[in-house]
Amino acid sequence: MSEARRAAVVAVGDELLRGDCVDSNSGEIARRLAQLGIEVEQFLVLGDDRRLLAKAFAELCSAHAIVIATGGLGPTLDDVTREAAADAARVPLETDATVLAELEARWQARGQPMPASNARQAQRPAGSQLMPNARGTAPGFRAWIEGGMLAALPGPPGEMRHMLESELLPWIERTCGRGEGLVSQSFFLAGLAESAFADRAGDWMERGANPRMGVTAHFGVLRVTLRAKAETQRGASDLLAARCAEFRARFAAEIFSEDEPRLELALGRTLLEGGWSVTTAESCTGGLVARLLTDAPGISAVYREGWVTYSDEAKVARLGVPRELIAAHGAVSGEVAAAMAAGAARASGARAALATTGVAGPGGGTATKPVGLVWLGLALDGAVQTRELRLAQVGRDSIRLYAAYAALELLRRALQRAAPRTD
Amino acid sequence: MSEARRAAVVAVGDELLRGDCVDSNSGEIARRLAQLGIEVEQFLVLGDDRRLLAKAFAELCSAHAIVIATGGLGPTLDDVTREAAADAARVPLETDATVLAELEARWQARGQPMPASNARQAQRPAGSQLMPNARGTAPGFRAWIEGGMLAALPGPPGEMRHMLESELLPWIERTCGRGEGLVSQSFFLAGLAESAFADRAGDWMERGANPRMGVTAHFGVLRVTLRAKAETQRGASDLLAARCAEFRARFAAEIFSEDEPRLELALGRTLLEGGWSVTTAESCTGGLVARLLTDAPGISAVYREGWVTYSDEAKVARLGVPRELIAAHGAVSGEVAAAMAAGAARASGARAALATTGVAGPGGGTATKPVGLVWLGLALDGAVQTRELRLAQVGRDSIRLYAAYAALELLRRALQRAAPRTD
Repeated sequence: MSEARRAAVVAVGDELLRGDCVDSNSGEIARRLAQLGIEVEQFLVLGDDRRLLAKAFAELCSAHAIVIATGGLGPTLDDVTREAAADAARVPLETDATVLAELEARWQARGQPMPASNARQAQRPAGSQLMPNARGTAPGFRAWIEGGMLAALPGPPGEMRHMLESELLPWIERTCGRGEGLVSQSFFLAGLAESAFADRAGDWMERGANPRMGVTAHFGVLRVTLRAKAETQRGASDLLAARCAEFRARFAAEIFSEDEPRLELALGRTLLEGGWSVTTAESCTGGLVARLLTDAPGISAVYREGWVTYSDEAKVARLGVPRELIAAHGAVSGEVAAAMAAGAARASGARAALATTGVAGPGGGTATKPVGLVWLGLALDGAVQTRELRLAQVGRDSIRLYAAYAALELLRRALQRAAPRTD
Repeated sequence: MSEARRAAVVAVGDELLRGDCVDSNSGEIARRLAQLGIEVEQFLVLGDDRRLLAKAFAELCSAHAIVIATGGLGPTLDDVTREAAADAARVPLETDATVLAELEARWQARGQPMPASNARQAQRPAGSQLMPNARGTAPGFRAWIEGGMLAALPGPPGEMRHMLESELLPWIERTCGRGEGLVSQSFFLAGLAESAFADRAGDWMERGANPRMGVTAHFGVLRVTLRAKAETQRGASDLLAARCAEFRARFAAEIFSEDEPRLELALGRTLLEGGWSVTTAESCTGGLVARLLTDAPGISAVYREGWVTYSDEAKVARLGVPRELIAAHGAVSGEVAAAMAAGAARASGARAALATTGVAGPGGGTATKPVGLVWLGLALDGAVQTRELRLAQVGRDSIRLYAAYAALELLRRALQRAAPRTD
């Protein structure tokens, strides 16, 4: 990728810097630019401070061909993106007579005189190009600063998105052409620690590798992205396809999807497609497995009911776990996990039943059964299996999330073996 | 605010720059620093690029006394925050023998050899100070660069938050002292829309107000922060105390906590303190209410069991809901919500029972029972009440979250009335 195709994104607003809200605009802009082959090198979040904004605009525009700013275009005095852009371009602000007339007409239509402060929205840096706002009162603009282009978009996501799609991206595509030779593909994996993945991925993960590999982990679920670069689009696609084929072969057991990042939704799809009825019997996860399964739309076709059996008595009364079994092995044991799964399958009539029992902490741990010990049980068409997890002391919430995702993965693997993929 | 008390926050990760996920860490760090009187001047988001990170760390540390980075501390080769910090400080990386031994012990406890890549997590820039990670495997560090301090924290929010609270903020407070004349107080409210709150808060919310008020909403739970500024700490405290007293009076019914942001944990505390046994019977929320209740440590003393009764048959078989009631009113009705709550209380013997039934979508809506319609039921010591929610079409996940928090709030209000606060 040439230097000229690198971009930067700036989000403007005191409310962002205070942490009162989160900047989602920048990520959205980055995703759309990537589709044009333009790589974003940094996001910057700044407050409504004219001096700091002007300095940042000038610096970013001298290093990037494309700088996109969102926010700070409102009518009130704390919105200073216009002034800062003019300062950075070393030009005055000028009033756009057409925009001013439109603003006045808008207020007239409401039967009210336009507040004086609104006239500020008709101003933009001299020599800049207007981008109309079909969704609000603040127009945007493109200004030329230090050899780069600064595009200023409104902050409200709906207005930003509409101006980006209808005004800015078409202009960038016309002016800069589509970037050649950058393609990417994502894979979603479960049942593998990030470090174990790295060991098996080996030199595919090196920084200089092409395709370049990135991986992020979320409670045992990995997102792996491969990005290939070449002189031509065709060259990049060939590079990517070759590595993807190797990747699919090496991680066949662990890949649960190439399009659905959420394990629970991918599993829901498998359950629905295969007509696998399913139930849950949860102790330490306390409803979390049921909640994840029922995140999948339409899951009621296969998920009819589940139990949260937090106490020993509930395990006995609802799932028919033998009292002696709990006495002999303790509630956190493979034996009880197996009996919970078998009992839930029996009581519900479902083909698959997932059970969890463990020590989520912070209290309740012992030397032999420490916080982080979790037993999973799975009954599938009458066959019962269990799995022991020994999770690090990562806190109650995280232990419960790891355990719930591991339970879903236990079921996914069993279904994969029961009905191997034929594609 | 002196220049020396200005800070910058950096979020590191290709996944952020690609727009695959949103950086929520930086805002959280800014909110906590503000409570120490430290103002954040910018957030920067950068990819896993050693050269760009080293350059940014050096530049930011020369302009700010405090620079806090999150992310890029994982075991894989694409995590390069350690290397970049060492480059910026112009020192080599060194291996911490204690950390390495701990990492090896952790893997040994799981009965597995440590993957070679994990050893990278024991490295940090020579001369830096270790910050242990109680929630994960990646320790953080404080390094001195160009006259500023760079603190590197892990990226996963749970790990980041714990290290921030237990390691970094206490150090900053000891080292830098508290800013004078800036004090703040938070309140946590439920059962009030953000706009309804704004109407009732009136001119307290104006931008120039002192104390200044900020509010953020999360599925019906509001966090309101009041920040007072004055020449002296005493002056600011007086201003704040006066407004807090008015605030407590105006929002007495809605405030559920002044220290616990999570409604489920505050409610768990109330249930445990009052010895209120509780159960759940969920249809549309599918285990989410149970999961939230069991997020509270020690809740097993009052929460023994719960049901996910997704199908009509399960409502009949497990909760004793009369089949005719479902036929007459439909499963999504106040009548069925009431019968579910009463049935769950009866079956479990708990004093309190929460029930949910609704249309979470995307399918299943009708003209009379649209997506977003949810009925809540509560049985408390034999008295049953119901509440109807008509939620906007904000998506399946959000509808379920709003419904679950509204159910918890229904119980909290009922307990508040049953045992009014005497303080």
